[in-house]
Amino acid sequence: MKFTKMQGLGNDYIYINCFEEHLERPEELSRKLSDRHFGVGADGLILIGPSKTADFKMEMYNADGSSGEMCGNGIRCVGRYVHDRGLTDQETITVETGAGIKTLRLHVEDGKAKKATVDMGEPILEPEKIPVLGGGERFIARSVEVGGREWTVTCVSMGNPHAVIFVPETEALNLAEIGPLFEFHPLFPNRINTEFVKVLDGETLQMRVWERGSGETMACGTGACATLVAAVLNGFCKRSGTVRLLGGTLQITWDEGDNHVYMTGPAEFVFDGSIAD
Amino acid sequence: MKFTKMQGLGNDYIYINCFEEHLERPEELSRKLSDRHFGVGADGLILIGPSKTADFKMEMYNADGSSGEMCGNGIRCVGRYVHDRGLTDQETITVETGAGIKTLRLHVEDGKAKKATVDMGEPILEPEKIPVLGGGERFIARSVEVGGREWTVTCVSMGNPHAVIFVPETEALNLAEIGPLFEFHPLFPNRINTEFVKVLDGETLQMRVWERGSGETMACGTGACATLVAAVLNGFCKRSGTVRLLGGTLQITWDEGDNHVYMTGPAEFVFDGSIAD
Repeated sequence: MKFTKMQGLGNDYIYINCFEEHLERPEELSRKLSDRHFGVGADGLILIGPSKTADFKMEMYNADGSSGEMCGNGIRCVGRYVHDRGLTDQETITVETGAGIKTLRLHVEDGKAKKATVDMGEPILEPEKIPVLGGGERFIARSVEVGGREWTVTCVSMGNPHAVIFVPETEALNLAEIGPLFEFHPLFPNRINTEFVKVLDGETLQMRVWERGSGETMACGTGACATLVAAVLNGFCKRSGTVRLLGGTLQITWDEGDNHVYMTGPAEFVFDGSIAD
Repeated sequence: MKFTKMQGLGNDYIYINCFEEHLERPEELSRKLSDRHFGVGADGLILIGPSKTADFKMEMYNADGSSGEMCGNGIRCVGRYVHDRGLTDQETITVETGAGIKTLRLHVEDGKAKKATVDMGEPILEPEKIPVLGGGERFIARSVEVGGREWTVTCVSMGNPHAVIFVPETEALNLAEIGPLFEFHPLFPNRINTEFVKVLDGETLQMRVWERGSGETMACGTGACATLVAAVLNGFCKRSGTVRLLGGTLQITWDEGDNHVYMTGPAEFVFDGSIAD
């Protein structure tokens, strides 16, 4: 079986062209191939195939074999794959995902779709839909006590829940200690992803993220979107800015016209491989 | 550039056939390719090429770009590679390594060298050569206080120093806490690799290892050899036995005739890849 390893901001998946390959048990395959010592090693498996409702379908499996709905870093790699490998000659494509149909705009340079912009949809700001307890119309800059300390928290859902906290310094924070205290705090019925953000200037934000169920990761696309939205709501940032993550940089725009959040970032091929079935 | 990912007991390297490929800066390449998110992902890089003094030469680089001398799990994979890929039709081969020329006996089944036996040489038992302080002719079952507790320690060098400790249970041990206390204990001038071993029966040992500079690992070939030697010296095991590690199982024999330790274990292909130079 042939596969391609790609990464976006260090978020790495094994991509399989299902126009050519036929898999039987993708859950089991994802578990086996994702193992970083006995397998290929990846955050999971992404199958690229035909769709009845969009240009392509992206089917995603996590390293533990569970289904994933969507991944901002992954979908950009899907865009680069279908373009650079000649499955499309379009620069705007639609992709069917577990979280609906997403539109991608490819940034082609020297025939290569090195970057892609993903329409991440509208942010959700109503507390009960995020969900976060506490009532009101929005959850902006509210004081929350976690681990014996007061934190100023803004909550945003990008389809998944985020608590964004602006801090003077991100580097010295012990996320392994603080992250779980937010994740399992009773304020968040579905647990929470937490972003710790330093405002570098009115269009540059630096963030670290604690992802629920995963711990600290190098990059989180929805987290970067939630961070820009939260920064705009707090008056810290323009509607278009750069978010620096441990794994790289994303450009985020919260469009005033359609209220959608657009995320632009890199997608890289790492290597092509073949493995015995 | 073409490469092959192989593993032995979960110890995984990127193997490059240098009869066909020509590399310029292997240190830099190892650092880049070994990265598990942005690169291929591996414990390091092993180059297989011609030797003036042996059948093949194995050149090894760690994930940080530093040179490695020898690796028991790696050299078995070299044996499988040169046999299964048709670079030799011999079943006993010699391999030049940074730790001298090693002899391998391949166990061929259905045309595949699924296992290999490596002559790991003679164990070193003199305390000053291991090195461990405390004098005497051998360092067997001596009581050592580490972390406020008394441990019964046997020291063996297989070219690198090992402290072997027989314990009633290995699973509950907090190696992340105890390991560094042994590693940096003043008794060991060159630091130490530490094996915690449960005797299952007179020919089966179960071990966990704390490798100096690496922490707990899934497998350590020299550690498994040192463990069997220590078990024989303590009267816990026959001269030939099975050592179970987290990453798999090794057969170890301490030969009464030539005093050499022979290690037999698996070597597996994972996948073949190609990457842009």
